[in-house]
Amino acid sequence: MDTPTILVLTTGGTIDKNYFDALSEYQIVDSGIPALLREARVALPFRVVEVCRKDSLELTDADRADIARHAAEASETQIVITHGTDTMTETAKALAGVPGKTIVLTGALSPARFAETDAGFNLGMAFAAAQVAAPGVYIAMSGQLFDGLKVRKDRAAGRFVALD
Amino acid sequence: MDTPTILVLTTGGTIDKNYFDALSEYQIVDSGIPALLREARVALPFRVVEVCRKDSLELTDADRADIARHAAEASETQIVITHGTDTMTETAKALAGVPGKTIVLTGALSPARFAETDAGFNLGMAFAAAQVAAPGVYIAMSGQLFDGLKVRKDRAAGRFVALD
Amino acid sequence: MDTPTILVLTTGGTIDKNYFDALSEYQIVDSGIPALLREARVALPFRVVEVCRKDSLELTDADRADIARHAAEASETQIVITHGTDTMTETAKALAGVPGKTIVLTGALSPARFAETDAGFNLGMAFAAAQVAAPGVYIAMSGQLFDGLKVRKDRAAGRFVALD
Amino acid sequence: MDTPTILVLTTGGTIDKNYFDALSEYQIVDSGIPALLREARVALPFRVVEVCRKDSLELTDADRADIARHAAEASETQIVITHGTDTMTETAKALAGVPGKTIVLTGALSPARFAETDAGFNLGMAFAAAQVAAPGVYIAMSGQLFDGLKVRKDRAAGRFVALD
Repeated sequence: MDTPTILVLTTGGTIDKNYFDALSEYQIVDSGIPALLREARVALPFRVVEVCRKDSLELTDADRADIARHAAEASETQIVITHGTDTMTETAKALAGVPGKTIVLTGALSPARFAETDAGFNLGMAFAAAQVAAPGVYIAMSGQLFDGLKVRKDRAAGRFVALD
Repeated sequence: MDTPTILVLTTGGTIDKNYFDALSEYQIVDSGIPALLREARVALPFRVVEVCRKDSLELTDADRADIARHAAEASETQIVITHGTDTMTETAKALAGVPGKTIVLTGALSPARFAETDAGFNLGMAFAAAQVAAPGVYIAMSGQLFDGLKVRKDRAAGRFVALD
Repeated sequence: MDTPTILVLTTGGTIDKNYFDALSEYQIVDSGIPALLREARVALPFRVVEVCRKDSLELTDADRADIARHAAEASETQIVITHGTDTMTETAKALAGVPGKTIVLTGALSPARFAETDAGFNLGMAFAAAQVAAPGVYIAMSGQLFDGLKVRKDRAAGRFVALD
Repeated sequence: MDTPTILVLTTGGTIDKNYFDALSEYQIVDSGIPALLREARVALPFRVVEVCRKDSLELTDADRADIARHAAEASETQIVITHGTDTMTETAKALAGVPGKTIVLTGALSPARFAETDAGFNLGMAFAAAQVAAPGVYIAMSGQLFDGLKVRKDRAAGRFVALD
């Protein structure tokens, strides 16, 4: 376990939703991921790149291709991707062809700006998994590290569950 | 990656420190770990056992033997231990002899009850590492997963660093 | 300053907005006001009544009449009303005719569930003003206690300002 | 109610306690009051002056004389003082001789840096009381505005109570 460099790609999603009184609505904003990493006192080298800033229901095939291109072309082999939860499994499929990299998708069911949120825990899972898991695509949600191609979101239950 | 059951052993430490006005001092209290796991929406089966409730500077050899015994005798093979940071590496050594288990020590530099804390992120790292790392003893702190026998705390810098 | 009993009427607004992943939207929910009062360690007798649960842009004349009726008919003379900020001044006008009561409207620009929010501070202002101000209608926002009939919300600036 | 200018004197106390891992203890630190006022979106002119940085059990007569001097000599007539809770009533007595000013002492039973704290609510009470109460000395704690000379802290119960 050498000191690794981790690439964090941000794409939007609930984890980065804020509420704007001036508009009386929620919007995805400047990513709070760098602030979360400071709060977590991450001393490991990392690099944060914003790929897009969308609710994951709005991500297009072109967006997913762009995310995969960022992952494939990066010099880092340990990659964390923050992402909306609704289509996280779709993006996992788009990343399946990227060779030689450990890619971990994560997000949150409750915005990082909330007093109570799963954002920090999930990001911590993704950081650890990126460092230690074999190359491949993973999803870190609901306290569990899933094979990214064998998992679905159970929206009603508010959790991710493994496919048989 | 079957759905695992994780054993969480709590031992005290800064992560569980609270401040009591009635005494004008902090004390380690009822562990906040179950509340953190709820907030993180952990849907994985887990079991929390309090082994002790101490500042890690006060842990004795008998305490470490007790922690190791809990880890060795547990039916679970994925074990997270929350622990004070000052002697976390000592306890890692005491756990080195436990065979066939993935044991991840973690804690926090800032109490979990603080608005800004590394507690949730660190616990997330430990949960993921317990699920995916090979059997052995690890320390998850400072954003990094360390070999538990090759790391020290740099107290002045407020971070853990790998030994050469 | 006898120990007073304070009536808290909740009507909805940003202060009580939550975000629901299952719907990918925010909604006004069970009021968080009782939790805020516990967190503030309020030892004063108080009573919380939910009058409605609406974004203040959706409040009708009938809603305002209902709020005024609750205030007028209450046995308490010290009344705090939590309310959306966009039409808070309209409701202040509807309350102007209630005699012999100190009525303080407050709310928040950022939901109480956020890690950073003006909710607790504003509610504290309202509690103190209800105890000490002369009978009348007030708005407690932006760190200031305003005459409820001589104030407007400057939405672009994100603050309330006194009218000349 | 003209737009007032509020003077905030900080003296230390639990409200400004932080926890330092490097020392394994709590200490009073750079006041968090300015950050609390930003979070509360206070748009009113205010000025913050640090008089001292002590647990209130350590305040001397000279410290109290210094606090009173700051209050007496200030150009502002609306004064909020953040203070440890254990000897808040002693300082209230030392301030009783300051003429023509509304002085409100407040503090917290739980540090402002905690996720759950009475700090913001109490500071909000103090801000409102400073704007609207008659000249005199007050204590704003436990959800209540007290006459500063007719109140005591019930340490076991964790609250302030009015003297008969």
